[in-house]
Amino acid sequence: MADVITSREKDYAQWYLDIVQHAKLADYSAVRGCMVIRPNGCALWENMRRALDDMFRETGHENAYFPLFIPQSFLAQEAEHVEGFAKECAVVTHSRLMENPSGDGLLPDPDSKLEENLIVRPTSETIVWDAYRNWIQSWRDLPILVNQWANVVRWEMRTRLFLRTMEFLWQEGHTAHETKEEAIEETLRMLEVYATFAEEWMAMPVIRGVKTASERFAGAVDTYCIEAMMQDGKALQAGTSHFLGQNFAKAFDCQFQNRENRLEYVWATSWGVSTRLIGALIMTHSDDRGLILPPRLAPTQVVIVPIFRKDEERTVVLEAADRIQAALRAAGVRVKVDARETHRPGWKFNEYEVQGVPVRLAIGPRDVKNHKVEMARRDKPGKEIVSQEGLPARIGAELEDIQQHLFDRALEMREASTRCVDDYEAFKDTLDRHGGFVWAHWDGTPETEARIKQETKATIRCIPMGADKEPGKDMLTGNPSERRVLFARAY
Amino acid sequence: MADVITSREKDYAQWYLDIVQHAKLADYSAVRGCMVIRPNGCALWENMRRALDDMFRETGHENAYFPLFIPQSFLAQEAEHVEGFAKECAVVTHSRLMENPSGDGLLPDPDSKLEENLIVRPTSETIVWDAYRNWIQSWRDLPILVNQWANVVRWEMRTRLFLRTMEFLWQEGHTAHETKEEAIEETLRMLEVYATFAEEWMAMPVIRGVKTASERFAGAVDTYCIEAMMQDGKALQAGTSHFLGQNFAKAFDCQFQNRENRLEYVWATSWGVSTRLIGALIMTHSDDRGLILPPRLAPTQVVIVPIFRKDEERTVVLEAADRIQAALRAAGVRVKVDARETHRPGWKFNEYEVQGVPVRLAIGPRDVKNHKVEMARRDKPGKEIVSQEGLPARIGAELEDIQQHLFDRALEMREASTRCVDDYEAFKDTLDRHGGFVWAHWDGTPETEARIKQETKATIRCIPMGADKEPGKDMLTGNPSERRVLFARAY
Repeated sequence: MADVITSREKDYAQWYLDIVQHAKLADYSAVRGCMVIRPNGCALWENMRRALDDMFRETGHENAYFPLFIPQSFLAQEAEHVEGFAKECAVVTHSRLMENPSGDGLLPDPDSKLEENLIVRPTSETIVWDAYRNWIQSWRDLPILVNQWANVVRWEMRTRLFLRTMEFLWQEGHTAHETKEEAIEETLRMLEVYATFAEEWMAMPVIRGVKTASERFAGAVDTYCIEAMMQDGKALQAGTSHFLGQNFAKAFDCQFQNRENRLEYVWATSWGVSTRLIGALIMTHSDDRGLILPPRLAPTQVVIVPIFRKDEERTVVLEAADRIQAALRAAGVRVKVDARETHRPGWKFNEYEVQGVPVRLAIGPRDVKNHKVEMARRDKPGKEIVSQEGLPARIGAELEDIQQHLFDRALEMREASTRCVDDYEAFKDTLDRHGGFVWAHWDGTPETEARIKQETKATIRCIPMGADKEPGKDMLTGNPSERRVLFARAY
Repeated sequence: MADVITSREKDYAQWYLDIVQHAKLADYSAVRGCMVIRPNGCALWENMRRALDDMFRETGHENAYFPLFIPQSFLAQEAEHVEGFAKECAVVTHSRLMENPSGDGLLPDPDSKLEENLIVRPTSETIVWDAYRNWIQSWRDLPILVNQWANVVRWEMRTRLFLRTMEFLWQEGHTAHETKEEAIEETLRMLEVYATFAEEWMAMPVIRGVKTASERFAGAVDTYCIEAMMQDGKALQAGTSHFLGQNFAKAFDCQFQNRENRLEYVWATSWGVSTRLIGALIMTHSDDRGLILPPRLAPTQVVIVPIFRKDEERTVVLEAADRIQAALRAAGVRVKVDARETHRPGWKFNEYEVQGVPVRLAIGPRDVKNHKVEMARRDKPGKEIVSQEGLPARIGAELEDIQQHLFDRALEMREASTRCVDDYEAFKDTLDRHGGFVWAHWDGTPETEARIKQETKATIRCIPMGADKEPGKDMLTGNPSERRVLFARAY
């Protein structure tokens, strides 16, 4: 089984695809660019969703649900927003099909042409702010702290499972505030929630920063982001949090009576992460043998494979496997026994390796007699015979250790892939040889940024937060620069 | 606040709408027929979803996610399916907007016209079975027991919040089996899951039955359903479970190697419930003062309203309220303290009455001194002073009692709204006077069924399961009938 996965060295893109498919996370569907998320992928997303949802709740947010469709005219109300989304959207123009009078098949019934076309939401700011206008009269109605779990559609030409698909699942927070300061505070709070989730749950180190003007969300005043480094040296934007100023409130005429009894436009934020995180997770940890899942998100943390040949062995081995399962489950471990007799133990070992289950326990008649079990960790080679005595505590410690180990390893990989250059030739050479993050000086102009992007395919991933100011010269133009920014080629 | 709700007697439809809006469950949106589900409505749906999801898991199902879009040609592959859904669907024809050269606004870019139109899923059998064809080779790959939580769109002309909306949220199970018997068993198992959920969680008694041919799901061999009775005497179909035979397997050429090594078409089921259940919940229990929620599904089961005038009272009262909250929360009760000083206690009492919170506790300085609290149940009038001693156990018991009381009351209402008639004139008279369920004889022909529907607006809700055979004569034609069936006017 393991050899069905192409090695990273041979073909990184194929390696990624092999993992997605052989770990049964997702498949392409009959609709170009749309994926079927299979049960393994769905369970992983549900675990991510649950962890994030708890964090949103702890920071005072509630869930709501807004319509899938957006009137075409709404998109046009916020000038930059239409620019950003009108060019890649699914347009609903009819509400009925009829038989094709000229032959076989169906066609849209001309009589059902809509008065106004509907757009399948690429993001929901417009429809949300149209609703908020009715919810908000006074400062007493603020803040509104709402999140939505939904599907969205962006008509991408080049798609890749999880990383870039036409339809994807995500959450989008939309909050409304009395003051600019409060909205900015919210924007940064949610960026921090994302960073915490990425690091503590996904075991994926991220850099927090702010986007340059040209990389901003269409309609935002400022876009903050978390950026991660993949094993092939390409960066991946893992989440964004936008300070929207009063742009959408103005576009949808959403004013409130402030504490001084004057009408004022509402201040806004929005923030989102998507099923793209599954792509990030795969590319951060996995190896040439398959998927590696961090224990906190793994749908199955421990699999128990019983090993027996004879009938009389079966009873005692299965009984021991069930007992261990019960003990682990009681300790809060997500565990399953794979007792299928249609598959051999070796096949199962491979299967769970490909699927990234953090810990595998195997138990045979001799182990039962010795009150032992064989343990193998997915994150490192080798196996160990351990006592059944105190196993739940031992497994709990191993799972925590795996979580930490994955983070440490990913951080080490990122550090090794981060370089500092001052010279444009060295910059290009570094990108070509190593990829990775490159700290370099930039003069702050969109023109220079665009030229670098065009010549090197690298973009400014962000202006990292908390980084020291360090005066220098733009590597391309020689113009003065206040600080280094973070460049990379990216997904 | 309570008098903003129209009484049922005065205008039942307006009463329903008032409750949805004043309990802040949902609003209409700018898109005709699409609703915004507000946080209160969303929290209720999430509780329903969690309970159902656990039951699906216990019966061996896993979640997956299939594309939002269905190629137009897929709809046409199953003959009855296209008949059922092509006439009310959202058709995506373009993938890009452009500025209207003739003036303001946007229009679909003609160059972005799709080669094949896409339909926003009204249900997912076709896209699911197109995927299953790739998943299933042999009997070893069966059964597939998959469920999906998703949004779907049906282009309804007359919509009503939750009950009938253009977009709604639902779950759809899609299972694949080796044998007809196993698929039928699955169909009935899931019908029973729905009935259990309706009765034990929603406190809504339901009748289990099978639909007549004309009321079947488009593409099903048999459609089973649960039917509930609303307070206005109209029936509501609350969930359906379909035995699909081999129809979709044949339409999508999905065959498997059976145990005898022969190729055979796969047997299928599908089953679903939707946000419509929220409408059913409202109309089963609520009264003229607002929503009434069964405790097992209520997002907030207990609200504590602190009452104080002076500053020195505030401290002791809030402290006691927090202490009670902590004790209830520790006992697993979903409880909140509403300590807002922007609103008066009387306003809050009304607010939580309208929102249907099952138990309200009020606590003032005297209660603190006496170690008491005032308790009011939403399901019956009056209030009671109870001791803080043993309060968690008492509240637990009250919540269970409310759950049972709501079910009993709804069952009583349904029994009182169920009649048996033999004569067509009496049938019409019963419907006009009382509405409700009517047991009557039917000769089994679609013609008679259609005529009764046309003349009385009543449909056969189902042929109830487990009901005794009772030979008789069709009330309209006088032709022989084997058993009574269940008629009603319905939502």
